[in-house]
Amino acid sequence: MSPAHAMRHRIGEATVTVLRADGRPLAGLEVTVAQRRHAFGIGNIGFDLIPLANGEPSAPGSAGASAVGGLEHLADLWLDVFNTATLPFYWGRFEPQRGRPDTERLRRTAQWFVERGVAVKGHPLVWHTVTAPWLLDLSTDEIEQAQRDRIRRDVSEFAGLIDTWDAMNEAVIMPIFDKEDNGITRLCRRNGRIPTVRLAFEEAHGANPGATLLLNDFDLSSAYECLIEGVLEAGVQIDVIGLQSHMHQGYWGEEKTLAILDRFARYGLPIHFTETTLLSGHLMPPEIKDLNDYQLPAWPSTPDGEARQADEVVRHYTTLAAHPAVQAVTYWGLTDDGAWLGAPGGLVRADGTPKPAYDALRALVKDAWWLAPTRMTTDDVGRVTVRGWLGDYELAVGGTTQGFALTGAGEVEIRLE
Amino acid sequence: MSPAHAMRHRIGEATVTVLRADGRPLAGLEVTVAQRRHAFGIGNIGFDLIPLANGEPSAPGSAGASAVGGLEHLADLWLDVFNTATLPFYWGRFEPQRGRPDTERLRRTAQWFVERGVAVKGHPLVWHTVTAPWLLDLSTDEIEQAQRDRIRRDVSEFAGLIDTWDAMNEAVIMPIFDKEDNGITRLCRRNGRIPTVRLAFEEAHGANPGATLLLNDFDLSSAYECLIEGVLEAGVQIDVIGLQSHMHQGYWGEEKTLAILDRFARYGLPIHFTETTLLSGHLMPPEIKDLNDYQLPAWPSTPDGEARQADEVVRHYTTLAAHPAVQAVTYWGLTDDGAWLGAPGGLVRADGTPKPAYDALRALVKDAWWLAPTRMTTDDVGRVTVRGWLGDYELAVGGTTQGFALTGAGEVEIRLE
Repeated sequence: MSPAHAMRHRIGEATVTVLRADGRPLAGLEVTVAQRRHAFGIGNIGFDLIPLANGEPSAPGSAGASAVGGLEHLADLWLDVFNTATLPFYWGRFEPQRGRPDTERLRRTAQWFVERGVAVKGHPLVWHTVTAPWLLDLSTDEIEQAQRDRIRRDVSEFAGLIDTWDAMNEAVIMPIFDKEDNGITRLCRRNGRIPTVRLAFEEAHGANPGATLLLNDFDLSSAYECLIEGVLEAGVQIDVIGLQSHMHQGYWGEEKTLAILDRFARYGLPIHFTETTLLSGHLMPPEIKDLNDYQLPAWPSTPDGEARQADEVVRHYTTLAAHPAVQAVTYWGLTDDGAWLGAPGGLVRADGTPKPAYDALRALVKDAWWLAPTRMTTDDVGRVTVRGWLGDYELAVGGTTQGFALTGAGEVEIRLE
Repeated sequence: MSPAHAMRHRIGEATVTVLRADGRPLAGLEVTVAQRRHAFGIGNIGFDLIPLANGEPSAPGSAGASAVGGLEHLADLWLDVFNTATLPFYWGRFEPQRGRPDTERLRRTAQWFVERGVAVKGHPLVWHTVTAPWLLDLSTDEIEQAQRDRIRRDVSEFAGLIDTWDAMNEAVIMPIFDKEDNGITRLCRRNGRIPTVRLAFEEAHGANPGATLLLNDFDLSSAYECLIEGVLEAGVQIDVIGLQSHMHQGYWGEEKTLAILDRFARYGLPIHFTETTLLSGHLMPPEIKDLNDYQLPAWPSTPDGEARQADEVVRHYTTLAAHPAVQAVTYWGLTDDGAWLGAPGGLVRADGTPKPAYDALRALVKDAWWLAPTRMTTDDVGRVTVRGWLGDYELAVGGTTQGFALTGAGEVEIRLE
């Protein structure tokens, strides 16, 4: 591994001292050091794996059901690349009937991921789309109370399993969204964007003070800057700025991506790319304003498109990792089977075979950006120097394995019990 | 005059009682009532008339200099339609050398307008374009102090003559404006948009507590909504929301105009259309993003274009007047001679002859929306009923004329001295 200067903020170098149980250094000892996990968030949605985590039989037509090996195969592909899962808390699907939330099913899914070393994020707590239809039967005051209660309940119940939430989704358009009447647009239009953001963050932080809460949007124009500045001036504690990047109309390229990073990094907050899509088929025409307006009976993945997607995935992730403000990148979907808008944005084809983009991303994060098991010999005071991507590591000697975290420059002591 | 229901908020009806000097009513008296001025702001820029107000000889090539009758002719056309003048306080032209502001020339111009019954607005106090070039020699702290001092000085010195200001111009793009380095973008980028707006409004209100201060922008997207909401949440007192409407790429039409009004009226603040342009020649292509990027050696006014412009001026002003939130509409330039971008956006041709749009606008505001001198006879207790557009009126009887204001429904007493 020879990381470029551009990635220096992703790299740590620690002196690891290997000690006997009695504290004496183990000099001249051969050890094997291997990376186990990236500190950088490499995420994907985990929606498709809910049936697997719950032991539900795959329904015909559900994601991965028709693929060879079904969901187990998808799960293996998922876990081999990603370390962060976004789970769906769309209010209208999570609690279609008031008082009957889908809590247990989501809890088992979150547990399934956590047991496999994957961090989980909930998405979203406040959004005007796919929101609970029964809000329309309530007064705006009652909608506000229901929204507050919902945030408190779900953030409390999942604390410890899910400690990262898209607290507010798409507030820029929320009060002027006119595609369908819904309770959240009513609430946001009456109260204003900033009070609605404050509601989301106050309730969620109240329910889980240690939670990492995102303000998330697809509108990356000056509007989002103005919203962020207003929210910060109003004293609302945002932990992370979330930027969606569904590139159905084409890869942005490095220049545009860097310009966006420059504009949103100046608030001094971490940035997550929360929803990333790159297509392996023809692109959506540029004149489409709302991506939801473009849906086709079939939108195939093509060999040319797959080659382009693989190239763009590598360029996009490399650009983002090279910027110090970016803490996580979540891809929006593993497979084309059941993908949003029917678009070939998955990293795996509908038949379950990996596309070149899957292999390219895996090679990037598990090879180019990864310290494979490496033999080292401790010096005369029991030390080895470990230089690698920030994250979790293991040191193995004989039959014993000890984990440690590489968090930057520093000293680590490992005592073999 | 038969005003439509849509204009009911523009119409007042008062009972005017005409009394002798000793307080007894003048029954059965023939009087003439006439409107003198609209309460609705019908504005235009007054830039071209600065030389006239200052008794300066017209320089060749300056606005109106080549026209028949020169600036006096333009002034007559101006004063026959408009009641509100916007004067230029672009910092880079007003004070190109630090400490040598063009105060006296602007003061004489403001006085010239005020003496002719015209209200004056200053434009702008804070803007990143045409700003003082010498700011670039200062530190950002010094820029901030210079900007504060400039606002205090000019707003104080013009108080009484100019009590309306575009306090902040184009804050949405201000911190990310990248066409040229300038001190105000530096300041806004460091401090943020909302603190920069606060600076402008606090200094201007401090210097003239009774002033009417506008937040003004050309960006009418959600970004401006988000900025306004942030500014209001931060407790900054905006008096008026200013919306630019340079329609070089074509008339918006009623539907778009109403949608914009709907979005910006929901803050409960008055709205001024501060900069309105409609062309009488070919339109700028829609793909141009920054209007300044499109400049031609010649951009002629055409007969077809002039007919279209006249129609659109009437439609636009009618749509705006029909919305209760709109308090003023300022057209951006009287003549094509020296017009912004060289575009045929004037209401008067470069040769000084009025275009159809001039005549149409005059007919609208001085005929359709106007109470011409009307004979009435007082009843047996000395009363006449005056129904007309809100504004200033005169009642004449014999050789005596008394003014009164029609501000809504109510009672007015006029005592003939």
